[in-house]
Formats: sequence, structure tokens, C-alpha cells
Amino acid sequence: MPDKPANDAPFRVINEVEFGEDVTVWSFSNLYRCRIGSRSRIGSFVEVQRGASIGEACKISSHSFICSGVEIEDEVFVGHGVLFVNDRFPRATTDEGVPKSDTDWTLLRTVVERGASLGSGAIVLGGVRIGARALVGAGAVVTRDVAPDTIVVGIPARERWQE
Amino acid sequence: MPDKPANDAPFRVINEVEFGEDVTVWSFSNLYRCRIGSRSRIGSFVEVQRGASIGEACKISSHSFICSGVEIEDEVFVGHGVLFVNDRFPRATTDEGVPKSDTDWTLLRTVVERGASLGSGAIVLGGVRIGARALVGAGAVVTRDVAPDTIVVGIPARERWQE
Amino acid sequence: MPDKPANDAPFRVINEVEFGEDVTVWSFSNLYRCRIGSRSRIGSFVEVQRGASIGEACKISSHSFICSGVEIEDEVFVGHGVLFVNDRFPRATTDEGVPKSDTDWTLLRTVVERGASLGSGAIVLGGVRIGARALVGAGAVVTRDVAPDTIVVGIPARERWQE
Repeated sequence: MPDKPANDAPFRVINEVEFGEDVTVWSFSNLYRCRIGSRSRIGSFVEVQRGASIGEACKISSHSFICSGVEIEDEVFVGHGVLFVNDRFPRATTDEGVPKSDTDWTLLRTVVERGASLGSGAIVLGGVRIGARALVGAGAVVTRDVAPDTIVVGIPARERWQE
Repeated sequence: MPDKPANDAPFRVINEVEFGEDVTVWSFSNLYRCRIGSRSRIGSFVEVQRGASIGEACKISSHSFICSGVEIEDEVFVGHGVLFVNDRFPRATTDEGVPKSDTDWTLLRTVVERGASLGSGAIVLGGVRIGARALVGAGAVVTRDVAPDTIVVGIPARERWQE
Repeated sequence: MPDKPANDAPFRVINEVEFGEDVTVWSFSNLYRCRIGSRSRIGSFVEVQRGASIGEACKISSHSFICSGVEIEDEVFVGHGVLFVNDRFPRATTDEGVPKSDTDWTLLRTVVERGASLGSGAIVLGGVRIGARALVGAGAVVTRDVAPDTIVVGIPARERWQE
């Protein structure tokens, strides 16, 4: 496996990322201790956290945030400004007022199955599974599982056609 | 026409942009093959894609994404984190599983007319026209045309006063 | 008071910031003429504007925008992609068509009280007060004050439990 993207671009922070072949990473990206499959493309202003996994032939658009606990399968489209969440009740500090560390909370795991598409500005709460080829509308907030081949829109995201 | 902004700032990616006079571009911006009119101001973490056009005396605030197919007329305010969309059914790959290229989809064109204002976090779907001096509320998702001089809010964006 | 963060990271823009002790600031951050209290942590792609104030032991997550007029007290969690607003009717130019300057509008002040948490993608309109330990749901648009110890969700944000 290569230890760097296939392209050059200025202003990237890439630490301990496992890349497949022919991965493209644009400027202003912040990737660390994650995996990115072959032929995937990562836009600018994207952060991918440690332990996150992105499959092959995915497109992760600009301004998106892929957190720890997220597994993205092959051929998934992630629009611009998509935010994943992995903590149900986030707090800055413990009850004792100490800044939270990695061991002070429960990581929720999220899976986006093969061929799904997440519209721009979508927010995906932790612990959900988005089915294969499902479409999440722009700006939707996904709070529960999405069945394969369905379209969901709105806040909270529900199955229906966007008017 | 100048071939660069009027100001200096570190960490910018600017490729083949046609600038008017006295354009200000802040740090962490990613601009390529687009046009930006005189006296406009571009915030940090902004991406403007090829073919997009921004008029004169506009303000494009931080974290916004202006995609191909978008025409922004003069004196338009684009808030922070505003996302434009230009593809109705985005997918990462073609039906044959090949990463999509520029020719595998239909570009939707969007126009924001003179003097309109888009609130922070607004999402503008492809193919709409936002009328002159219209106001789009913060966090609204614009799915259809907005008449001039109206205010729209919500998801999907509808004409009413924000409570 | 130190005049810089406690950590090193590439690609930061930091101008005239008043730091407490042990502040961590990650790459791709744009901070100017603001205050950040001890032990607070600032993620990547974050902008904090002049005059904004962040307390101690806060976490400001990636892609967030903290504008002038915002006061964040101690131990506050700000999720990813959170946007603050400080202008009720933003326009790019004055009625005379001149680009707006700092003196052409009314700054709305917002306070986030101690221990509150703002979910990812939340938008906070100007002029509100978010009470101590309140929780704002992911993707909510806060248009009015939030009482201490309450949970608000939706657009506009209302008090109820997230389903």
C-alpha cells in the first residue's frame, strides 16, 4: 500500500494514513490514522479522524468531517459540508470539570453502506446504518437507520420525496 | 484585469482566477478557474469552483462553497457555511462502478440576483433562481425559485417571517 | 499570559490572540484579536473573530465559526460546523452600493453560558443567551434564548427530546 496520495497539492496534513492506489487528496485536508481505499477522492477542508475507514471509489466532498467510529463502504458519495457525529451527549469536560479525554465517553459507530449518497450539509448522528444506495437529502439530519434504496429528507430525516 | 487579489495572505490556493480590481481573498481559500468581480471579498475556508462567477461588491463569508454552475450577481451577501449544489442525484460512481468524471452528470445552473443575501448555513439546491434583494434565512434549504424582495426560511425554504 | 498556543501545528493563522495556559490549536485555524482561556482546544478549519471570547476548558470543534460579539463561558462544547451569526439583516453593501464596513451595522451579542453543549451543525442567531448546561441538538437553528439545563432541537430550536 502506498503511504501517500497519488497527487500533489499544497497545504495538506496527512499523518499515518493507509492509502489504497490512486487516491486523490486536495489542499487543506487533515487526515490522520485512518484508511482510504483505492481510487477515492478527498476534497479540500476535509478532516478524517483516526480509526475512520473510507472504501474504494468514494468521493468525499469539501468541508466534510468524518469522525472516529465511521465506516464508509465502497462507491459512497459524501456531499459538501457533511458532518458525522459519534457522541450522544457531548460535553467539553467531565463532571469534575476536567477536559474530556478519549476514554471519557462512548464511541457510537456508524456505517454507510455501498453506493449510498449523502447530500450536502447532511448531518449523520452516531450509531446509525445508512443502507446501500440510499439517498440522504441535502441538509437532512439522520437520526435513525436508513433502509437500502430509500430517499430520506428533512429534520429528522424521513422517507419521502423532496418536494 | 489583475491576475491576483489586492491583498496578501498566507495559505491560499488560487489557480487561473479572473479578478476584478481590489478583490480581497483571505487565508485558506481554494479558488480555481472562476471569476470574481471588483471590490468583492472572499473569506477563509471558501472554495469557488471552475466556471462559477461572482459579481462586484459581493461578500462571500467563511466556510462557503460555490460550485460550478453558480452565477452570483453584484452586491450579494453569502453568509458563513453556505453550500451550493449542482447535481440532483449525486453518485460517487457510474452504474458501471467507475468514478464519475465531469461528463457523467447534468450540471444544474443557479443564479443569485443582485443584492440578495443568503444567511449562514443556507443550502441552495441546483437549478434555482434567487431574486434580487431576497433574503434567505440562516439554515434554510432552498429547493425552488425565490421571488425578488421576499424572505424565505426553513426546510424547505418558504416565504414567511422568521419568528 | 502566553502569546501563542501550547502546541505546534502547521498552517495556522494567529494574530494578536490572548491565550490562557495550555491552549491547543490545530492546523488550518484562523484566529485574530480574540481571547481563548486556559486548557481550551480549538479544532481545524475554525475561525474566531476579533472581540470574541472563549472561556477555559472549552472544546471548539472543527469547521466552526465564532464571530465578533460572541462570549463563550467556561467548559462549553461547540460541535463541528457550528455557525454563530451577529447581524440580523446582512447585506453586502450599504443602500448606496458601497461595501459595508465595520460601522455600517448593529452587532448582536450572544452568550453561551458555562457548561453548555452545541451539537454539530447548529446555527446560533445573534442576540441570544444559551443557558448553563443546556444542550442544543445537532443541526438546530437557535433563534431565541435557551433556558439553563434544557435540550432544544429543530428549526427553529424548541425544547423537546430528540426522537
